[in-house]
Amino acid sequence: MKIDRDAPIGVFDSGIGGLTVAREIMRNLPSEKVVYFGDTARVPYGNKSKETVLRYSRQIIRFLQEQKVKAIVIACNTASAFALDAVRHELEIPVLGVIEAGAVVAAKVTRNHRVGVIGTVGTIGSGIHKEQLQKLDPEITVIGKACPLFVPLVEEGWLHDPVTAEVAKRYLGELKVQEIDTLILGCTHYPLLRSTIQEIMGEHVRLVNPAYESALELKELLTRKGILASGKEEEEFPYRFYVSDLADEFKSFANSILPYDVEMTQKIDIEKY
Amino acid sequence: MKIDRDAPIGVFDSGIGGLTVAREIMRNLPSEKVVYFGDTARVPYGNKSKETVLRYSRQIIRFLQEQKVKAIVIACNTASAFALDAVRHELEIPVLGVIEAGAVVAAKVTRNHRVGVIGTVGTIGSGIHKEQLQKLDPEITVIGKACPLFVPLVEEGWLHDPVTAEVAKRYLGELKVQEIDTLILGCTHYPLLRSTIQEIMGEHVRLVNPAYESALELKELLTRKGILASGKEEEEFPYRFYVSDLADEFKSFANSILPYDVEMTQKIDIEKY
Repeated sequence: MKIDRDAPIGVFDSGIGGLTVAREIMRNLPSEKVVYFGDTARVPYGNKSKETVLRYSRQIIRFLQEQKVKAIVIACNTASAFALDAVRHELEIPVLGVIEAGAVVAAKVTRNHRVGVIGTVGTIGSGIHKEQLQKLDPEITVIGKACPLFVPLVEEGWLHDPVTAEVAKRYLGELKVQEIDTLILGCTHYPLLRSTIQEIMGEHVRLVNPAYESALELKELLTRKGILASGKEEEEFPYRFYVSDLADEFKSFANSILPYDVEMTQKIDIEKY
Repeated sequence: MKIDRDAPIGVFDSGIGGLTVAREIMRNLPSEKVVYFGDTARVPYGNKSKETVLRYSRQIIRFLQEQKVKAIVIACNTASAFALDAVRHELEIPVLGVIEAGAVVAAKVTRNHRVGVIGTVGTIGSGIHKEQLQKLDPEITVIGKACPLFVPLVEEGWLHDPVTAEVAKRYLGELKVQEIDTLILGCTHYPLLRSTIQEIMGEHVRLVNPAYESALELKELLTRKGILASGKEEEEFPYRFYVSDLADEFKSFANSILPYDVEMTQKIDIEKY
């Protein structure tokens, strides 16, 4: 299959969190066009079964293929955990997942081979980070901790807040005693709590932000395959946003975290795909 | 239509919160059988549009009708707000909603005609409590406040916790200065935070628990229609629980709040209905 280098990148998430990934792609690959899909009608994925998340992911990928994307980034940790392997075999275009991207970097930077991972109940319960990390280096001990209140705290906008700090202290206490030297932010919302998490963990713990690492991995991949955008095609709307429900609320969150005006957010019926 | 008095009551919610309603029905109508459906695959409803919630509610009602229920209690506030009126006209069996039940009691007990309502973003944004209360008494001033962190705090099990108390203080502060004398717990999870909320609001504020009030209204309605259970039919499983995803986690939450062992929880594919 010949891939059109000027086609957009498809990015999807269960909701708005994946915008942190889209943001890193926009920052690090400014010539690329992006089609973002947020499954706001069925958010969150973290408490759903593998079977359900895989079905949802396939529907979204069918939608993105209709948008003629040249590559897909699964910006949702739960969907990366449950769907990446399966859909990678089903598609001719490259597919990246945030979990893999984070694991590769964590395995590279840890010195004491003790890596922590924080995420939703679904992601942590899946054990996927452990699996990925130990594939890269069997010596690594992985300590996971689910932090279910972080997402609603971020969505409430309490990013720098004593309540959030107290919740974080409680969640992260368990990881501190484990003497990890590397911590993967295993949920797309968590980079927005980065400074609070860094302060509690201490400067000696390296935080790995899979949103940023995915953007770098994507850049490398597109370069290797010779399908980086030519930058010649000017487009009025290089970034297009789609959601499965409540487009207006999405728009306001997107506008609060992206350095661009979200010109165009459309609601589509994802269950038709 | 002749209604079978020994048929079960159907109760549904977007997830596990409606179990507080099922619990009140079990306590106050011990001869009744209950079929509970929790839409755990598509929880929460609070951030979804009216159109989506109505479609989901109709699917669940089709499932409950297949179970031959004699009456339906919509235990979910969002679904009560968005679907009760529509489905009531479509069904021959009686349908109750938690919002109406709470509003009737609040209108009766308020003395200064200032009623507060707390709930999810969806419920509060819908203005449905205001509409219902002012239909009952146009003199009533309704002050709504969305408390989006309460549900995840309850689901985390932090029921009696300084973090929860601090979050509650912040949310309820706005209501305190409004000098309400009555406060509707407009989300099915909130009765589990009752003591914290009462302490912050003060003893002079009457908390209205729509879970309890719905059970009383149901009792009255079944009595009036002459379809209270005869109590003659002994059944091995008088309470049956169905979910759309992850039946095991549901079971453990149900067992933590219900004074019964949840013998039988089955996962069904609700999207087929």
